[in-house]
Amino acid sequence: MKQRSAEILCIGTEILMGDIINTNAAYLAKELAGLGINVYHQSVVGDNPQRLKDSLELAFSRADIVITTGGLGPTYDDLSKETIADYFNRKLVLDAPSLHEIECHFLRLNRVMTDNNKKQAMMPEGCVIFPNRNGTAPGCAIEGRGEQQGKTAIMLPGPPREMKPMFEQSVKPFLLKDSDTRLVSHTMHFFGIGESMLETMLHDLMQESLNPTIAPYAKTGEVQLRVTAKVKRGEDAEALLQPVMEKIKEQAGEFLYGVDVGDLQTAAVRALKEKHLHVALAESCTGGYIAKRITDVSGASEVFECGICSYSNRIKHEILGVSAQTLDQYGAVSEQTAREMAAGARRISGAEIGVSVTGNAGPEPSEGKEVGLVYIGVNSDHFSKVFMLNVNRKDQDARETIRYLASSHALSLILKAVEMA
Amino acid sequence: MKQRSAEILCIGTEILMGDIINTNAAYLAKELAGLGINVYHQSVVGDNPQRLKDSLELAFSRADIVITTGGLGPTYDDLSKETIADYFNRKLVLDAPSLHEIECHFLRLNRVMTDNNKKQAMMPEGCVIFPNRNGTAPGCAIEGRGEQQGKTAIMLPGPPREMKPMFEQSVKPFLLKDSDTRLVSHTMHFFGIGESMLETMLHDLMQESLNPTIAPYAKTGEVQLRVTAKVKRGEDAEALLQPVMEKIKEQAGEFLYGVDVGDLQTAAVRALKEKHLHVALAESCTGGYIAKRITDVSGASEVFECGICSYSNRIKHEILGVSAQTLDQYGAVSEQTAREMAAGARRISGAEIGVSVTGNAGPEPSEGKEVGLVYIGVNSDHFSKVFMLNVNRKDQDARETIRYLASSHALSLILKAVEMA
Repeated sequence: MKQRSAEILCIGTEILMGDIINTNAAYLAKELAGLGINVYHQSVVGDNPQRLKDSLELAFSRADIVITTGGLGPTYDDLSKETIADYFNRKLVLDAPSLHEIECHFLRLNRVMTDNNKKQAMMPEGCVIFPNRNGTAPGCAIEGRGEQQGKTAIMLPGPPREMKPMFEQSVKPFLLKDSDTRLVSHTMHFFGIGESMLETMLHDLMQESLNPTIAPYAKTGEVQLRVTAKVKRGEDAEALLQPVMEKIKEQAGEFLYGVDVGDLQTAAVRALKEKHLHVALAESCTGGYIAKRITDVSGASEVFECGICSYSNRIKHEILGVSAQTLDQYGAVSEQTAREMAAGARRISGAEIGVSVTGNAGPEPSEGKEVGLVYIGVNSDHFSKVFMLNVNRKDQDARETIRYLASSHALSLILKAVEMA
Repeated sequence: MKQRSAEILCIGTEILMGDIINTNAAYLAKELAGLGINVYHQSVVGDNPQRLKDSLELAFSRADIVITTGGLGPTYDDLSKETIADYFNRKLVLDAPSLHEIECHFLRLNRVMTDNNKKQAMMPEGCVIFPNRNGTAPGCAIEGRGEQQGKTAIMLPGPPREMKPMFEQSVKPFLLKDSDTRLVSHTMHFFGIGESMLETMLHDLMQESLNPTIAPYAKTGEVQLRVTAKVKRGEDAEALLQPVMEKIKEQAGEFLYGVDVGDLQTAAVRALKEKHLHVALAESCTGGYIAKRITDVSGASEVFECGICSYSNRIKHEILGVSAQTLDQYGAVSEQTAREMAAGARRISGAEIGVSVTGNAGPEPSEGKEVGLVYIGVNSDHFSKVFMLNVNRKDQDARETIRYLASSHALSLILKAVEMA
């Protein structure tokens, strides 16, 4: 069977106008890649039947499968099903089980079902229905007949929390029924090195390695390498992947903090758990960002009990025990204050590792300290240090970037402290 | 002059494969709408010259302006400029000022400039160059000649922190030089009401109002209405907007928390500032999320000094003073604990308003309390209350959603407490 291709077509004036960010396209693209289905185009159109029809025709001229998101809802401008059914010459018919599900959904939420919700149970004749366990609009697939043989439209709801589980539970099995090649990837996570430097280090390897491929991409403060092998059913992808990953480790291993680990906070929580260690936080300019990232990870309570956001000198002194003299002499944004904050966090919590952040996230200089100057402290029995970070940014995202990078450095210092413990 | 239209074409295999989420398209769409330029299509293609060329031709068959992001970087797969210059029959020539800027950029960062960076200073002949103040790759615009008269390609770098300031500083003035109509919008922010309920309440008004238009969109736990007037140069947009906004307020004002206010945290910080009040936080299951959102707002230090993440019973007791009996008898996830946490936060900080969150964000039940059960407490002289929230979600984003919604409710309780003060 030939390699199948798909296009992602996101429908919705909110996306087109930029009112919401299109996270669905990224999710679907990644999932389709994992299924070995090639995606060469993503597009967005508004809730406009003619442009939707044109986009659908274009997409089917380039791909076998078109996956749409959005436009399945109850309101008058939700027209995806109508337009796509029309493309396949299908009528919409009431699907009794879907209507029942929608009624149950409203009962569970104890909310009144307005009449327009019934529209969501009108489904194209002969389609495959994907139940929606997290919302009201079911999804569906239409498989073309006659001249349209081989063309499949898959319609999914717009809200990510409805679309993603539907994809996982229903669409994946639907798509897998005729696939024979697949892509297997590992993601290697690097911190403390820029993308172009990493690419320069690995240039030859990246150029010569065709299966698996090595693709770098930069996230704020991090670089990830996705190593992807393409294999036929029954072939061992790891036999292709592991030797190349070993070569990468040989060349850039000192910056690698994990493989398939998701992110720094997941790596930090995992490392703390493995050694039965705890971390306590004292945050000033990050104001809870590190705590938030750590507690994003489920099970964080095993390794994290106490975080203090000390957003004023008074709280740094009263709760964390930073000495008045230190604050007076060096200021809140200083190596000395960071050191005492980390020690204070550890002392009041009893954790083995204390981590602190104090800095100026802007927009104005304070205490004569420039915007972007941040001190990150770590205190533990075997590793204590204050790291100075200088984020030289003046753009509108500067505040977010400074705070995010400071929290990333704090997480990477937690990883170091665990390693030294 | 006729109304211009634009398409957004994002270039990059990372976006196509779903490795990064395309935030650029949303940003550009919103900005272009504000300039009165219609956008009917957004698309994404990988770093593939043929498909890029096809996409460019398609886009120019539908729109006057094509704005691309990505593919301007130093690496071998960055081919946007080459491909687009070719479409316009232009050569790439070395731009000395751009090269100088790139060299300076590396000097400022104290990093070695690898040779491949010079490629970024090769610009299409006769283009308008947009300097990059936050990175190395300059952007540019090519205005078509002869048969291509009236067609403009605008090439911007991929990283949002480079692209956004470049758009603001250089592209906006470039685009504004021939525009004559514009769109003016206000966004009305609602909390505590669902999208379909709000739309049902405002149905007639939304249907009959054509200028301004009223567009609803749902964010997690919130609904926003964008009210948009289209006016010619010199016309007063507010004269169209204000009467319609007044009607919306008459019908749904009780759920409105602000106009053009951005988000709940900005509204909360602004309200606290206006009354010179302070808030202190005691967070358990939100683990710093509320503090993080409050300190996202620059100037938060005027109203926020102290947040405690008490992620264990011991810290709730030792630092916040929740009584051992309460924890024992009712458990950490209880109305009583929330009440004592809010009081404790206020007591140790001296803030006029104390807010607490304790709940179970999952994935497993704890203390026999189900996932999604959260208590949010507020303590102030004129308003004290514990709000129970029950988020009924089992999907993979459940943890994030529960934590986010709990922090949103906490912020809305801050707004209530300020109102009552």
